[in-house]
Amino acid sequence: MIAPRVVLLCGGVGGAKLALGLDRSLPPGDLAIIVNTGDDFDHLGLRICPDLDTVLYTLAGVVHPEQGWGRADETFTMLDELVRRGGPDWFRLGDRDLALHLQRSLRWRRDDRLTEITADLVAQFDVHTTILPMTDGIVATRLDTDAGMLDFQDYFVRRRCAPVVRKIHYEGTRSAVMSPEVLQALSSPRLERIVIAPSNPLLSIAPILSIPDLSDQLRSAGVPIIAVAPLIGGRAIKGPTVKLMQELGMQADACGIYEFYTDRCAGLLDAILIDTADGHQASKIGCVVACTDTLMQTMADRLRVAQSVLELSVKGGRP
Amino acid sequence: MIAPRVVLLCGGVGGAKLALGLDRSLPPGDLAIIVNTGDDFDHLGLRICPDLDTVLYTLAGVVHPEQGWGRADETFTMLDELVRRGGPDWFRLGDRDLALHLQRSLRWRRDDRLTEITADLVAQFDVHTTILPMTDGIVATRLDTDAGMLDFQDYFVRRRCAPVVRKIHYEGTRSAVMSPEVLQALSSPRLERIVIAPSNPLLSIAPILSIPDLSDQLRSAGVPIIAVAPLIGGRAIKGPTVKLMQELGMQADACGIYEFYTDRCAGLLDAILIDTADGHQASKIGCVVACTDTLMQTMADRLRVAQSVLELSVKGGRP
Repeated sequence: MIAPRVVLLCGGVGGAKLALGLDRSLPPGDLAIIVNTGDDFDHLGLRICPDLDTVLYTLAGVVHPEQGWGRADETFTMLDELVRRGGPDWFRLGDRDLALHLQRSLRWRRDDRLTEITADLVAQFDVHTTILPMTDGIVATRLDTDAGMLDFQDYFVRRRCAPVVRKIHYEGTRSAVMSPEVLQALSSPRLERIVIAPSNPLLSIAPILSIPDLSDQLRSAGVPIIAVAPLIGGRAIKGPTVKLMQELGMQADACGIYEFYTDRCAGLLDAILIDTADGHQASKIGCVVACTDTLMQTMADRLRVAQSVLELSVKGGRP
Repeated sequence: MIAPRVVLLCGGVGGAKLALGLDRSLPPGDLAIIVNTGDDFDHLGLRICPDLDTVLYTLAGVVHPEQGWGRADETFTMLDELVRRGGPDWFRLGDRDLALHLQRSLRWRRDDRLTEITADLVAQFDVHTTILPMTDGIVATRLDTDAGMLDFQDYFVRRRCAPVVRKIHYEGTRSAVMSPEVLQALSSPRLERIVIAPSNPLLSIAPILSIPDLSDQLRSAGVPIIAVAPLIGGRAIKGPTVKLMQELGMQADACGIYEFYTDRCAGLLDAILIDTADGHQASKIGCVVACTDTLMQTMADRLRVAQSVLELSVKGGRP
């Protein structure tokens, strides 16, 4: 039975840090994480779900500590051999990582639901937080750029986000629906708040929000929705958030994040947690604002930001 | 254009030794090897072709030198991780080996022909001998045993050939046909002899012979068919040949090998190369017999046996 007190919407590396902070701050069963699958793709016949894996590896304590994704103590014997034989080298598939991809791909091709496959993988790693793909359907983030229309991994990994983005498409959202498990999490009688991780709003959170019934359910859940801004002093910790926001004509700072979730997402936010360095922007933000040091370098940082999110007082939350 | 002077019918480890001897004895293009695919199976969503891989790795000089199959300098990081998470450990999938399985499986699922996939893999390893799967169809060796009907790898790897075999089935042979490339090899205007490797006759060669049009084509190729006996003094170098022959009521020695290819395979043989130790059996064999030391431990051994096969004089070969 999925009956969390807190639901987190989450992408990969940045979001996973808050996921870990919340996981370690809450009793087992109190947290459910809805993870972006817009980055998922097929490579070498494997079904790869980068954000799901990053969240799982992070919570399991086996993630590469500096990189923030992939496995610690990873080796690349398969990849080295593949490349020696002329295979593609742009996506760094590690040997340990492969054990997970092989298991998932086998079941994916048998048409098992990604939610069920993920639950079984999560159990293998002794993780007790619920990790849910945003949908069992296929939603693919694609980017209309000055280098043409690009698949997400082509843009993000192969081209290292260099092309200028004109528009982002979340393909498949018209027919994608949330899973019964996502509905269950968002209908939890114990639900107290929904948290939007400090992930890239355009690449990690927007795909989740693009699923119509999931988006509706968020709004009707009757609990405050709280975002953690992924920018500090107008800069991202990692990744192309600022570049992308600017290319799409957005203000790349805490205000811009607020505006994105308000204007483009029909007033989704009840509160936002921003960095202390951005405190001066609070007056321009039309929802509850709290400030803390949002940089999450250490475990103590992750716990502190998690605590701020959990304690953030949102008066007059939705009915 | 496939126009060999010599065609070899071959299984895995034992046969691959002669394959290597012939490969090193003949100019490029003069040898084509038709390989058993009755052992092929699906594992972890990968299409695995053990005999094709053993022959390829052997000719490429990357085979594990003691084992005779799999890769030299192999690591098992993926497998260790898989087993740690509760996955199956009975089939030893190495990291280097995976690079090949992933490439093949991807194309296999796209319905590319195994012959074409194999040709591309062979080219990756700079091997210039033609390596042909016996068919592009699916033929599966299954064993009726005292432990029930078993898939080949279940019997051979997981149960280490312990069950007593009552009958062997080559499933799929009714609809399987030889590939255009096998026909081309067997119709080569330059063809001088067909060699049957010292492989397990029941598990490695019989599946090849079970394909009706391939079997017919062997007989009508108009060149001598020469077998190399896989037993020395009534013992196999490796594997369950003796146990299996005995369980099926056959005489487990050079005579039994001859009888198998004669009685069960409608007089297939024109000549047989047996070990010097079995010379006393020559008088009981009704085709041309030659003797040499057939044990192939060193490269010199492989070359010597290959030379014996190539020089074996078969007077009055077929029209």
